[in-house]
Formats: sequence, C-alpha cells, structure tokens
Amino acid sequence: MAHPRDELRRLRWQRCVQALLVVVWLWAVSASAAGQQPLPSWNDGPAKTAILDFVRRVTQQGSPDFVPPAERIATFDNDGTLWSEQPIYFQFAFALDRVKALAPQHPEWKTTQPFKAVLDNDLKALVASGPKGLTELVMATHTGMTTDEFTKTVNDWVTTARHPRFNRPYTDLVFQPMVELLAYLRANGFKTFIVSGGTVEFMRAWVERVYGIPPEQVVGTTFVTKFELRPDGTPVLVREPKIDFIDDGPGKPVGIAKFIGRRPILAFGNSDGDLQMLQWTAAGTGARFMGLVHHTDSTREWRYDRQSHIGKLDKALDEATARKWVVVDMQRDWKVIYPLQR
Amino acid sequence: MAHPRDELRRLRWQRCVQALLVVVWLWAVSASAAGQQPLPSWNDGPAKTAILDFVRRVTQQGSPDFVPPAERIATFDNDGTLWSEQPIYFQFAFALDRVKALAPQHPEWKTTQPFKAVLDNDLKALVASGPKGLTELVMATHTGMTTDEFTKTVNDWVTTARHPRFNRPYTDLVFQPMVELLAYLRANGFKTFIVSGGTVEFMRAWVERVYGIPPEQVVGTTFVTKFELRPDGTPVLVREPKIDFIDDGPGKPVGIAKFIGRRPILAFGNSDGDLQMLQWTAAGTGARFMGLVHHTDSTREWRYDRQSHIGKLDKALDEATARKWVVVDMQRDWKVIYPLQR
Repeated sequence: MAHPRDELRRLRWQRCVQALLVVVWLWAVSASAAGQQPLPSWNDGPAKTAILDFVRRVTQQGSPDFVPPAERIATFDNDGTLWSEQPIYFQFAFALDRVKALAPQHPEWKTTQPFKAVLDNDLKALVASGPKGLTELVMATHTGMTTDEFTKTVNDWVTTARHPRFNRPYTDLVFQPMVELLAYLRANGFKTFIVSGGTVEFMRAWVERVYGIPPEQVVGTTFVTKFELRPDGTPVLVREPKIDFIDDGPGKPVGIAKFIGRRPILAFGNSDGDLQMLQWTAAGTGARFMGLVHHTDSTREWRYDRQSHIGKLDKALDEATARKWVVVDMQRDWKVIYPLQR
Repeated sequence: MAHPRDELRRLRWQRCVQALLVVVWLWAVSASAAGQQPLPSWNDGPAKTAILDFVRRVTQQGSPDFVPPAERIATFDNDGTLWSEQPIYFQFAFALDRVKALAPQHPEWKTTQPFKAVLDNDLKALVASGPKGLTELVMATHTGMTTDEFTKTVNDWVTTARHPRFNRPYTDLVFQPMVELLAYLRANGFKTFIVSGGTVEFMRAWVERVYGIPPEQVVGTTFVTKFELRPDGTPVLVREPKIDFIDDGPGKPVGIAKFIGRRPILAFGNSDGDLQMLQWTAAGTGARFMGLVHHTDSTREWRYDRQSHIGKLDKALDEATARKWVVVDMQRDWKVIYPLQR
C-alpha cells in the first residue's frame, strides 16, 4: 500500500483535474449555446419576435399554450416560401430542360407545339400555348416512366442545372432564414412538413439533403401511378399521364388531412395558393402561428405580390393583415436570403 | 485546513461511496436490460430468430447490411396483421353499428336494402346485397360529414363497442407480439408505418394510443374530401361518398410511393392483399425482411388461410414459401395473442 501522504497527493490531484474538467465542460456548453442563438439570419423585429414567442409558449411545460411534441405539426409551402420561384417555378424549368434532353427521341417535337416553342426558346409561343400546353409539357416530362427512373432524372437535373440569374444550382436558392426556422422548430420538438403545389416525387429527390425534411414528410401534387410486374418478375411503379391530386389552394388542407391526419399548429406560405392552408391552421384550438413570406427585395431576390403571375399574393395578404398573421418582409426581416450570402 | 489524516479519511470514504454507486448503477442497468429481453411474447424459434438477426444486421455499424436510420422504413398491414379480422373486418362492424345508430334519422332504411338487412340482423340478405350493398353501407356511414365529425364517431365506437366473441373493446384484440415488434423496431431506429386496405381516418383515431404509430404514419384507403368555408367563415373538410384511392393489393406499393416515398426494408402482412407490398419490399437492394402472419390458432384466435373470404392467404403463402419469406405460425410462434392474456 502507498504511503498515506502519496495517496493524499494523488487523490487531491484527481479532484483538481475533475474540477477543471467540469469548468471546461461548462465553458464549452455555454460557448456553444452562445454560438447557437436561434435564427441568426433573421433581423431583430416583429417577425422574429413572434416566432420565438410562439415557440416558447407552445413548448414551455406548464404554459397555458403548451402543446405535446406529437402535436407540434408545422407545414410549409415550398415554391416562394422555402426557395425562390422566379423567373419561373423551378419545377417548370426542370420540365423545359427535360424537353430539350428528350428531344432527340421525339423528332416530331420540332414541329409540334408546345414542344417546338421550348426547343426554339420561343417564350411568346410558349405562353400562347396556355395551361393546356403547359400541362402537356409536364405530362411529357414527368410521366410515362417508373418512379425510380423519374427520381434519377430529378437527381441529375438538381446536380447539373443552373439558375439563369445566379448561375448556381437551383438548390442553392433556398432561403437561409427559412432553413434555420425549420431546424429551430425541429430542435423544439416540431415535425416539419412540406405542403406544396409542386409534385411530390420532384421534391422528395432533394428536400432531405437541402431542408432536412424526409420524403415521408412531403405532401404535394401526385400523378396516377400503377403497379406492374415486369416479365422477369421485377415489380415497378409506372407514372401515368393523369393527375391524381392537386395539392394547391383548397387542396392543401385536403392534402394535410389525407397525408398527415393532424391539423398543423404552424403554417407558412407566400401566395394565395396557401390561403386555405392558413385558414385551416388558424381554425384549430389553442395557440396558432400563421406566416407569409412577402417578396419585397428586388435587389437580393425579387419584388412581387398582387400583380404577379407567379406566386400571386393578394387575398392572402389582405386576410393576413386583417387577422394579424405574421407577414415576413424579406428585405427588412432577413439578413441574408441564400446560404451562400452568409 | 483539516488535518491530513481526516482529509484522507474523507476522500477515501467518498471514493468508496462512488465505487458503490457505480456498482449499483451497473447492476440496475443490467437488471433492466434483462427485464427488457426483446419480443417477450414470441416463442424462441425460426421467426423470432429471423427478426432478431435481421435487425442486428441492418443496425450494426460496419455490418455489410447496415442501413442508415432514415431508411429503416417498416410497413405493416393492419387487419389480420396487427389485430384480428374475424368474424368480420372490425371496420365493417363499425359500419354496421353506425347504421343502427343512424337508423332513427333514416326511416326509409327500414324498408331499403342493404340497410334493412343490417337492422333486421339478417346476415343472409346482407351477404346477398354483394359488394354493391357493402359499398353503400360504407358510404352511408363513412361520408357526408366533416373529418372532425367522423373522427368523433370512431372515437366513440372504439370506446363503447364490444367484440361479439370476446366481449372486449376491439382495440383489446391487437396482437401483443406485433405490438412488441413495432416497439422493438422503433427502439432500433426504424420508422413504423401502417399500410392498410382500411380507411385512413378510421385508423388514425386510435392507432397512436394502441400501436404507438402516429396518424401521419398511416397509409390507407381514402375518400374524396372537399374544403369548404361555412357561412360563419369556419373552414371544414367534408367527406364525399366517393373513393379517392384503394390501398389494397397492387394499391399498397402505390400508397407507399405516394405517402411515404421510400421503399420499406421490412414489411409484414397476412393475406393476398399484401402480396404486392411484399414483392415491392423484396425488390429493393440490400437486406430485406418480408413477413406473413399465418392464422393457425383456432383456440386462441382463428384458423384460416386459403379458403377464407376474409384475409384469404393463398398466393402470398405460396410465394412466401418459394422465396423463403418468414411465415409466423401464430399457434407455434406466439406465447400470447392479445395483451390481456399476458
């Protein structure tokens, strides 16, 4: 056995090291907490305050507005709410690029509208083809293949395509403040969902990597899909040129009921197509948060609302004002728009 | 300052207490682990071994079959796989009970088939009404109300209705071994889903409490639903008497693609209606688990397969045998059937 004085010295030394470790650990924790101020890309102001206040109220045990984690459902529109949507919806840019990529297999497109307009970059003729023409383009590029094949084309496009204004991949044009909001909500026990007019499988190919939202939390427009056993016994799902469900406007609460089955306590949109989702969210009992992203920044992004063909925000803006929903002013409320600007 | 000998005694004492605490803690942990042997209601045998082996292979870091948690999707049929389905599908028992409850508001039902058959308890006439009659009963009891109103009727029924053989609430007739399997998978990072021919909102009313599966992880048959603003401005979702999507047979992989957007790595069913879900699961790359519950216990539950009108298991049983999928023999593999028998 060691001499008592040696043992005492050793034990004292151990206690000293232990105390030091505790101090270092406390310092690390507090430093990391300080580095993780929530929503760093949001300027201080009414929108940020409203978000922080709402989250505090619904998550604080004993608060009259407390909501159990399982019921903390948050739904977000995608186009114009989580990423940009100008000069054309990004999914439509995908459709146009696919027409060009598929053109060699379709020589008849050279002389058939609306395909000819796309191949000639003739925007006037494209617009003249109207909703019927646009639907034709979507069907020709989104259906007639298996689900696996379609997902592959989206993955390829997301990797290679560039946005005409920023010359960056489209997925670089997500809104950094909203990405932070999604993460902040999840850190507070929320389950975050996309509820978009875009089609489900287009989004599912990339949203997990970009927003941290898994495929099973994406609600969107769907095509009729059929199960088939190929002659060698391989099962496939074939996408048919027929819309199954349109997840836009009044379709959004229907999509929420169908896919999620719980009413959100927080919903964010940016256009009249989100109005019914916000109304549905607002009509639940207990604390609620309804938010709109208002595109007010012509320099860093785009400035548009009531007169825009894309992401028209008119009725929903009036209702948000009347009902005191939170309207985020991109120019005023956001320090940066895109992740690359940090 | 204390005398060195006193301080030494104190420090020795502290170390002794610390060591004792570590021993107690280790003992508590191992005791608790021993009390939490996985799948306690499963008899040792090939089915249990196959489950434990599969979960170990896909969860063990460095295993060639390792699957990241986000991709550990497990899908379960409901009727006959997670709870009983005899003498009639429980959701159909709900429909019959609702006809009786609603009869005072529908005097015409006394003289109109198939409603008359239900009110007279005339099983022969009911069967004679065929699929068309059964559909009429489902529409009359499942649609024509708001989603909130429907959920309330299901909640009331689940609380009050009794199964004719066991005289217990229907939700007491869930399979204890399968409830344990669901929990075991979740404890190993799986996300558990129901993929059922039953209708989504019937299941969502009670599956979270009974199976621990949240509403947003339930895939099923859906009705067309419409968003409406009531005159006072309240938004409601009205269920229309029209099927939107049938989540059965070849519809199951379609439902999985539509609602979940990822291919399961484990799927469990009990009838030919689950065959395509199992084929779809089996066709993915990497480790896979396909399971069937075989109703072999006429004493504790029911015994049926190839000839049954409900939960017919014929083609899927042949394919399971040929492809070495796991067939659970209820009589042999399960210590108990229902939670109350523990």
